[in-house]
Formats: sequence, structure tokens, C-alpha cells
Amino acid sequence: MSRRAAALVIGNEILTGKVVEANLPLLAKTLFELGIRLERVVICRDDLDTIVRDLDALRHTHDVVVTSGGVGPTHDDVTIPAIAKAFGVPIELDPDLAQRIRDHFGPRTTEGHLRMAEVPRGGRLLANQAVHWPVLAMDNVFVLPGVPEIFARKLEVVREALGAGAPYLSGAIYTRCDEGVIAALLARIEAEHHVLVGSYPRFDESDHSVKITFDATERGAIDRAIDETLRALEPGLVVRVVRAA
Amino acid sequence: MSRRAAALVIGNEILTGKVVEANLPLLAKTLFELGIRLERVVICRDDLDTIVRDLDALRHTHDVVVTSGGVGPTHDDVTIPAIAKAFGVPIELDPDLAQRIRDHFGPRTTEGHLRMAEVPRGGRLLANQAVHWPVLAMDNVFVLPGVPEIFARKLEVVREALGAGAPYLSGAIYTRCDEGVIAALLARIEAEHHVLVGSYPRFDESDHSVKITFDATERGAIDRAIDETLRALEPGLVVRVVRAA
Repeated sequence: MSRRAAALVIGNEILTGKVVEANLPLLAKTLFELGIRLERVVICRDDLDTIVRDLDALRHTHDVVVTSGGVGPTHDDVTIPAIAKAFGVPIELDPDLAQRIRDHFGPRTTEGHLRMAEVPRGGRLLANQAVHWPVLAMDNVFVLPGVPEIFARKLEVVREALGAGAPYLSGAIYTRCDEGVIAALLARIEAEHHVLVGSYPRFDESDHSVKITFDATERGAIDRAIDETLRALEPGLVVRVVRAA
Repeated sequence: MSRRAAALVIGNEILTGKVVEANLPLLAKTLFELGIRLERVVICRDDLDTIVRDLDALRHTHDVVVTSGGVGPTHDDVTIPAIAKAFGVPIELDPDLAQRIRDHFGPRTTEGHLRMAEVPRGGRLLANQAVHWPVLAMDNVFVLPGVPEIFARKLEVVREALGAGAPYLSGAIYTRCDEGVIAALLARIEAEHHVLVGSYPRFDESDHSVKITFDATERGAIDRAIDETLRALEPGLVVRVVRAA
């Protein structure tokens, strides 16, 4: 049974259209490769009580929760306090992190700077060679920043922490079929094989009109589903087939 | 008081990383321009009961809900049945839409094709000159497809249906300040003026390290907040100021 994950993206800037959310594609791909099923994403405002409510809803119903955004020194960065509140624990200043901040900023160190050293009691600090600031993990919740370059580096730390289950594999048939004509076929293929079948139409100048995808953890199941689908499709309408790697 | 909106994005392809979600930036900007506050986005799987649960949670707590994805002829397109179930109404075949489909496909018309004519009882069909297929609206829920080109065209129909309230305006100061140093200042500006203050650090080769944003429906409030912030910042660290248009 695959582990199930959810993501909580925190930030008014995304909801007002100022910033385009850029971390979900990488997160989705990474979890897929790990064989972890990303089932749900919530994008919410920089509001303490909203984050607490969403965190509590997601962390009890999923094996893994990854948050993005709302960690930093300013008033709109409330993810750490929300995590502490959701878990019912106080926030403490990590002495090592606080010392590193004081060493860096010297006498110009502010309360804002020191917020970067705040850790909810019971939180774990995860690190590897590639990050110079650790990732906070609290039970099954991993706390990442929203800035994409840093999110990507810290996601590698999360990947190491999660380890790999049976990874998901994916195959595809690119066709010039009409989606309405193959709808019943695809429903039958999904029902009869242990694969998740997706159907993605395009309406542009691409060489295909529908991409059919086949996801499973077992390569043989994907191949059998592709073979049976190919037998049912009009050969002239099949543009290409991509087998699971 | 601004109207409040939520979006429900439906699609396994986004959660597995096969497709990058491309409609939210446009939706967020459009709602912002209309003075409607997008408060929440949920991305969920192509699962009937999940969609029903999410729709019911969102439509009762927001003035407007926009859905994206899951409308089409295949087995994984379950948004219309989910809407019917959420509202407790049967699905009916719209006779005009069904006739247009039969006219187009002739004797090759399938059940899959005809699913495009299914409308939950009580649904409204909205159209303008730019779309050749209407947008389904059910109470406060607007149902859009996931394919970005079509989503964009249909969103214009939704924009006309929603009309404009007092639009949001936005100003910005680009600075080379350290975010930790200005954190207390920004919290005070937001508390004392009727503006939403955002702080967005960058860690790349850009000309600024922090963009401070000021959102409000009243231009004067934004200008006053910007002026007071400028008085408090070190002038040499201010890169540029963008007033609300």
C-alpha cells in the first residue's frame, strides 16, 4: 500500500496572482518517483488559524505533509507558530541556530533574524551537505520555504528522510483518436488491469490529440494495459507509444 | 466587504506531476482585478466523493467557487456528476447541446460525446461570442475545463457574469534591505494602515533583495503606506517605487 501525501502551500502572493506557484511540479514529480501518492494540495492565506486548521486536517489523514512558504522573518511568516499551535507545543529558540545567526549579523541581529532559529518543541532538524540551513520536520510534517531555489535544495533532504518505497512507473500512448470514441475502452482497461488510466486531450498544433497515460508500480501491468489498448485502437491513429522505463 | 472566492482544481495529472497546473495564475489575477479575494485553492484527485466533499466545503464558505478540470467524455471526468451529487439534483441531457453534438458527429456519436451535453438540473448555461460551448454555472459554482486555452476563454464568460466590485490595487517598493531588519516596520505599517503588506525576498542576481507589496481597494491608503515606509527605509537601499495604477 502506497504512502499518501498532501501539500500545504502558504502565501497570499499566490492567491493574489503576484507570484506564480513554482514548487508543486517538482514536489509532485519527486513524490511520484518515491512511490508516494500526492492526493491533495491546499493553497491558503498567511493566516495563523487557517494554517492550523489545514495542517490538522491534512496531517491526520495523510502519511506525509509538506508545507511550502510562510517561513521567514516578517509579520506574514506564520507557518512556524501555526505548526506549534497545531501540535500544542511551545516555540523554542534552537541555541545552535541562534548562535549562527548572531555570529553572522553581529550587533545588527534583530528579533526578525532570530525568528529563523525558532523551532516548535519536539521538532527535528534535518540536514545534508547541500543545505546550509536545516529542514524542520515535526512528526510527519516537513516545513519548506516558498522560494523555489531553496525549496528544491531542501526537498532533497526530505527525499532522503522519506526513503524510497516501490516507485510509480508510467507509460503512454499518443493518439489522434477522438476522446469521446475511446472513453468506454479506457474505463474498461482501468477496471480490468491494476493501472490508473488518464486521458489528456490537446487542442493545439501538436502531433497528437489525446495522450493516454498508464500508471502503476508494476511494469508488467502497464505493458499489458498498453498492449490491450493498442489492440483496440485504430492503428493509423496511434502516433507513438512510450513504455514505462 | 469584498466577495470571497475559492478554486477547486481537479486532476490526477497535476498531483502526479505529469501536467503543470497552468490556470491558477490567470484565475488569481482575474479575481484580484475584479476585487474578489481568492482565499483558498484545493487541488484534488479525479474521485467523485472527494470532489463532492470539497465542493460542499467550499461553496458554503465562499461567495464564488471556480472549478477547473474533470469535464470531458472519459471515465476520469467526474466533475459534472460530482456537482449534481453535491447539489442533490439529477443530471439531464440539455436538448440543444445534445443536438449540436449529434449534428457534429452524425452516426459516429457516442455516449462519451453526449456526456458533454449533461447538465445538473438547475444549472445555468452562460455564453458570449468568444466561446462556442457554454460555461456551466450551478448556484455560485462555475465549472471550467482544465485545458488552459479553453479555460482562459471561458474565464471571460465568468468575468462578465461576476461583474466588477471595487477592484484591488497594488503598489510596491523594491529594496536591497535585509528582510529581518524591516520586519517590525512592515508589521506596524500593515497594522496602522488599511493595507495588506507582503514581503518577498529573492536570492538571485536581481537588482533587489526584497519586494514589499501594498494591496488595498483605496489608492490613497496605498500611497500613505508607501510614503511612511519610504521615510523609515535607508534611502540608498530603495531601488524603485511602483505606485498603484
